[in-house]
Amino acid sequence: MKVVELSGGVGGARLARGLAALDRVDLTVVVNVGDDAENHGLHISPDLDTVAYTLARMEGPLGWGRADDTFHFNEELARFGLDNRFQLGDRDLALKMFRTRRMAEGASLSEVTGEVARAFGLETSLLPATNDRVRTRVEIEEGWVSFQEYFVDRRHQDSVIGLEYQGADIAAPAPGVLEAIEDADIVLIGPSNPPLSIQPIVAIEEIRTALTEHPKVLAVSPLVGGKALKGPADRVMASLGYPPGTRGVVSAYRGMVDLLIVDTRDAGDIGEIDGVMVETADTLMPDEEASIRLAKELMGR
Amino acid sequence: MKVVELSGGVGGARLARGLAALDRVDLTVVVNVGDDAENHGLHISPDLDTVAYTLARMEGPLGWGRADDTFHFNEELARFGLDNRFQLGDRDLALKMFRTRRMAEGASLSEVTGEVARAFGLETSLLPATNDRVRTRVEIEEGWVSFQEYFVDRRHQDSVIGLEYQGADIAAPAPGVLEAIEDADIVLIGPSNPPLSIQPIVAIEEIRTALTEHPKVLAVSPLVGGKALKGPADRVMASLGYPPGTRGVVSAYRGMVDLLIVDTRDAGDIGEIDGVMVETADTLMPDEEASIRLAKELMGR
Repeated sequence: MKVVELSGGVGGARLARGLAALDRVDLTVVVNVGDDAENHGLHISPDLDTVAYTLARMEGPLGWGRADDTFHFNEELARFGLDNRFQLGDRDLALKMFRTRRMAEGASLSEVTGEVARAFGLETSLLPATNDRVRTRVEIEEGWVSFQEYFVDRRHQDSVIGLEYQGADIAAPAPGVLEAIEDADIVLIGPSNPPLSIQPIVAIEEIRTALTEHPKVLAVSPLVGGKALKGPADRVMASLGYPPGTRGVVSAYRGMVDLLIVDTRDAGDIGEIDGVMVETADTLMPDEEASIRLAKELMGR
Repeated sequence: MKVVELSGGVGGARLARGLAALDRVDLTVVVNVGDDAENHGLHISPDLDTVAYTLARMEGPLGWGRADDTFHFNEELARFGLDNRFQLGDRDLALKMFRTRRMAEGASLSEVTGEVARAFGLETSLLPATNDRVRTRVEIEEGWVSFQEYFVDRRHQDSVIGLEYQGADIAAPAPGVLEAIEDADIVLIGPSNPPLSIQPIVAIEEIRTALTEHPKVLAVSPLVGGKALKGPADRVMASLGYPPGTRGVVSAYRGMVDLLIVDTRDAGDIGEIDGVMVETADTLMPDEEASIRLAKELMGR
């Protein structure tokens, strides 16, 4: 069974791990690159790395970064007056350095991502949404800032007034992305932040069109009891004017998805909303077992 | 008292620490950059860093690198098939990254070195011999290799047939180097490897001339009982055809130095050799106290 998942960071990565564990699933994960940034000259792809580490069972204790990592390099940066608010682990840094060097040699982001997946022994096909530069920009009261400034430096405390996905209008899907979607028996949108993690992917016109035309697209809501499990999804959607709860997620995905899975704690929202069917499942994935359970459940819908 | 020391890595750094501790000494250390290299896109200046760390009492347990460092980044490089034979510590990496970023912004090596010295709270003036590219190349049986390949990758086990200091012929002394030598009451050549650490400095014609013209240049032999304390100085000098022991050091420095200090274990060599006065002192510097003792001793000669 060919499955494509569109994914942001931690939530999408956990679902990917569940899907990857299913024998009959041939999985391709298409990952958001809108959060990518250059820190200290290094090409940082936070979501790609979170998905790769999670699939390799090497993710950090909070879901991002590397397991068993130290932050000595990062601590030491302060001595030289360098910005170290982005937590760059010592082991994690090797991956960032590898990517940066390979890209400096002319490799594309998708080529390097494939090399990383092979280095980690992954069987899942891991693809960036695009090899072109797409950068999520966030409008807050003080003006437009980078995603990293909003999310890391300012700890996503600001009210988000607007979003743009700089470069998405001229970006092409990475090689293999459209083919994977077209060939897929089912396309999943992981339980990621709709405006911050999924929109930067589907802001690429050809990807959005491929989803619109696909017969079976199923999204998992990132909300549990109407609130984001982690991160600012509910607050961002509210300040951007989306309806609260499930209706907001439906509103973000309308026209692209056929079925939306919400958590059992949001069971009051089932049925058809604005032309999208809404069903429930237990969407919490505290461990790999839960990820596998949810993945199986989704394959049965 | 204005003092200039020409220095390679560990031995020269230990003498510098002793000199820096003397109240009446205004010290400038001019450091070899022939071992500099680019690893993973980072500008590595092994001797500059050893001297800076040693002056800041932050040097690693073997004299090079950082105290209390870990090597997680370096270990992890292997996962991606990257060369990790050069031991790059996690904390040490922050200094390398800082230098690399500042140089990418257009700062010269001497500017960055000054910034590092200030970040470390050093009062000593620390200068690279040159801001230009000088690279020591080593001829071994298999042909010419980089210093790093000879020293790190091949663990200085090869017989050295020839040496060249690529770029030294067109390199200019870094700003302040000639002025410091001209103004110095005494110029010291630290107990560093004559062909591998000191020659790449004095291969820059203007530095050699400044030394030749200086009235008081004193060198400390790196040999103890005719052998190098660490590193391959004695073997390299032998295979390059220098006379053994003190005579070899005299031969390397003839024309530039007025007085050579050899270790008390080489007391059989005192007197005048080929026009250079040879005297003895206890040149071992296992700790800071010993460094200060030797520094005081040298200031009295």
